[in-house]
Amino acid sequence: MIGARPVSARQIEGGVTAPAGFRAAGVACGIKRRAAGSASAPLDFALIAADEPVSAAAVFTTNKAVAAPIVVSREHLSKSGGRARVIAVNSGCANACTGEAGLHVARDMATAAASSLGCAPEHVLIASTGVIGVPLDLGKIRAGVTAASAALSIDGHDAATRAIMTTDPFPKSYAVVVDTPGGPITVGGIAKGSGMIEPRMATMLAFLTTDARVEPGVLSQALRHVVDRSFNAITVDGECSTNDCVFALASGRSGVVVPRSDDPAFLEALGAVAGHLAREVVRGGEGATKLVTVHVTGAATSADAWLAARTIANSPLVKTAIHGGDPNWGRLIAAAGRSGAAFNLDHASVTIGAVPLFTNGVPHDERAADAAEVLEAKNITVAIDLGTGGPHDATMWTCDFSAEYVRINAEYRT
Amino acid sequence: MIGARPVSARQIEGGVTAPAGFRAAGVACGIKRRAAGSASAPLDFALIAADEPVSAAAVFTTNKAVAAPIVVSREHLSKSGGRARVIAVNSGCANACTGEAGLHVARDMATAAASSLGCAPEHVLIASTGVIGVPLDLGKIRAGVTAASAALSIDGHDAATRAIMTTDPFPKSYAVVVDTPGGPITVGGIAKGSGMIEPRMATMLAFLTTDARVEPGVLSQALRHVVDRSFNAITVDGECSTNDCVFALASGRSGVVVPRSDDPAFLEALGAVAGHLAREVVRGGEGATKLVTVHVTGAATSADAWLAARTIANSPLVKTAIHGGDPNWGRLIAAAGRSGAAFNLDHASVTIGAVPLFTNGVPHDERAADAAEVLEAKNITVAIDLGTGGPHDATMWTCDFSAEYVRINAEYRT
Repeated sequence: MIGARPVSARQIEGGVTAPAGFRAAGVACGIKRRAAGSASAPLDFALIAADEPVSAAAVFTTNKAVAAPIVVSREHLSKSGGRARVIAVNSGCANACTGEAGLHVARDMATAAASSLGCAPEHVLIASTGVIGVPLDLGKIRAGVTAASAALSIDGHDAATRAIMTTDPFPKSYAVVVDTPGGPITVGGIAKGSGMIEPRMATMLAFLTTDARVEPGVLSQALRHVVDRSFNAITVDGECSTNDCVFALASGRSGVVVPRSDDPAFLEALGAVAGHLAREVVRGGEGATKLVTVHVTGAATSADAWLAARTIANSPLVKTAIHGGDPNWGRLIAAAGRSGAAFNLDHASVTIGAVPLFTNGVPHDERAADAAEVLEAKNITVAIDLGTGGPHDATMWTCDFSAEYVRINAEYRT
Repeated sequence: MIGARPVSARQIEGGVTAPAGFRAAGVACGIKRRAAGSASAPLDFALIAADEPVSAAAVFTTNKAVAAPIVVSREHLSKSGGRARVIAVNSGCANACTGEAGLHVARDMATAAASSLGCAPEHVLIASTGVIGVPLDLGKIRAGVTAASAALSIDGHDAATRAIMTTDPFPKSYAVVVDTPGGPITVGGIAKGSGMIEPRMATMLAFLTTDARVEPGVLSQALRHVVDRSFNAITVDGECSTNDCVFALASGRSGVVVPRSDDPAFLEALGAVAGHLAREVVRGGEGATKLVTVHVTGAATSADAWLAARTIANSPLVKTAIHGGDPNWGRLIAAAGRSGAAFNLDHASVTIGAVPLFTNGVPHDERAADAAEVLEAKNITVAIDLGTGGPHDATMWTCDFSAEYVRINAEYRT
């Protein structure tokens, strides 16, 4: 299972610049407001740069209200045939629903980065995150490009990680090395959350780098495979943003060739980083206090397994019960039952941690106290068998639902 | 539009016993725990009885984890050919996920009511609401049947309304009279909410009565038509319960014949009661402080209109923004965009109350203060045009999302 950390992928330091051939920077360019009483301006502009144009791939939001940076990045990737040199990102403003003017700013953001780094505009991928419907200030972006270009270094990964955050409670960065017959390959990455999170066929902002030598088409297929089992398998609030994207760049500097998109070592390394970052996005979800793994088994089809897992992972009643430490298996059954997936109550079961609470249609409420103890942990697995006898399963990650989520989102923006 | 109160349907007193030929009762039988310090036991058992078996129709939950009372009521309605004399309801225990034993209790509940009122068991419809997975105590139900049978009267509607409540903050009861060429007909009803609310093709507990003379098949079609535009067009939290049902009984006592299911006067009267009760369920949703009407226009298909309306009405970010009084049109656009409905951002628009905030792809943030003022009301309409130029629309009712919802559902049960 992608997401469980494989034995042979070893965590290393360095995040997005851990693979050879990448530098990064994060700077303050004045888009985010300075917090009251804060001595320094918040970081809000990041660059991740390869030493030259390299293989690149992306997965974009499926939201039909796409933001300007998504439009531009999609065009560039298509025009360049899957090659890019730099990822330019701002936080604090999503440049979404900003019309033709917003599209011009997005193009100018890419052009500015291209000029500063000496590459073609189509070798720049851009991303934005923050408030929707507010114009993005091109002057500030240009200042950010200038400052970040000057600051690029392999030590810049931490600043870049922080510069893409919005309401995230902590930065999300990870890197692994995995041994292959041809030698070690390294994958690194950073991500941001932390509301409007149920990416579906796309994701939040996440940027992955590798020193593997991999052609754009192969990289694209491998990225899609991994994203479907990581960033597309998480939810905080069922919302899919206008700006979600995952970019991957491959410098080839390890000299290790990845010949096919199903190469096990490469998928393992890419999956380890994507899975870890995806779970970190959930753990840092708005108001989240617990990371919940939802494992659905006994589904008649794979689509049913995902449908039930997604419905349970988004159920406000399941998520509030887990927040309250209440082993309310009835809400899990009710969510599975309404999901639309084939379901047989007489053979269904619910397990919280290792505690069976409902098996083959029979409640075991005598185990409720044991399950309540499991729910006190920060990391919880709930397993639901749909009772159809089918062989399909799915795993999603979600968080509990707290009053803090409401507070953050009732007060954000105005 | 069903839901807007028609001019010719006049509200009258009497709720579910307003139509001639019905009596009701609500009693305490010990299923709900007595609140600490309360002098009296809470009402938790209700009967609604016609003077004889009459035309009956129902719409049931589409949740595949159906509760025992749903199974029994569906069987009875089928066996009786659409006739019933009594509706027996308990609150405090849903009799859901209770296996074979629960099914026996449900059958015995119907048999007890049949014996007490002197009718066949298949002329009894039953419903239960409350905690899932807890056995329903048959002894208490029998005591409830005895006490409620003795208490049946046309003045019993208020007690019956209160006896079906769980976490509802207020009782929900309504009745109208409408003039027809053949004379006046009356429709009454009661309902309960107030969490696990997004009925879909089914609904909460709601019980409607009328003195119109209407055959079971016609009543069933009319009920389905009305329910799709009332109880199926509301959401509190996107959850569809294991126990949802709407029952309708028609005594015929007015002597006014309803010949067809599309009879305008009958649909108007039935729709007025169902629409009012549905909106009351939303207004009384867990933690709700505002009733929000979501009106989607410009959809390419009817299915798209409903999909977008449902997605917006369930969006946690939309609902928290409205709770916080934030005219955050970007969240409305993002929800419409991710709904899967055909969507054209360049021609989309968002209006809050009468304030246009986004038209043809252009924000009007200069109107934000006006829209914020609209959001201070208890009753808010948000209108979203999907920008496709299509002629289809849909209206749903939802509530805002408060920290109180989380508190209620994190603390309920344990």
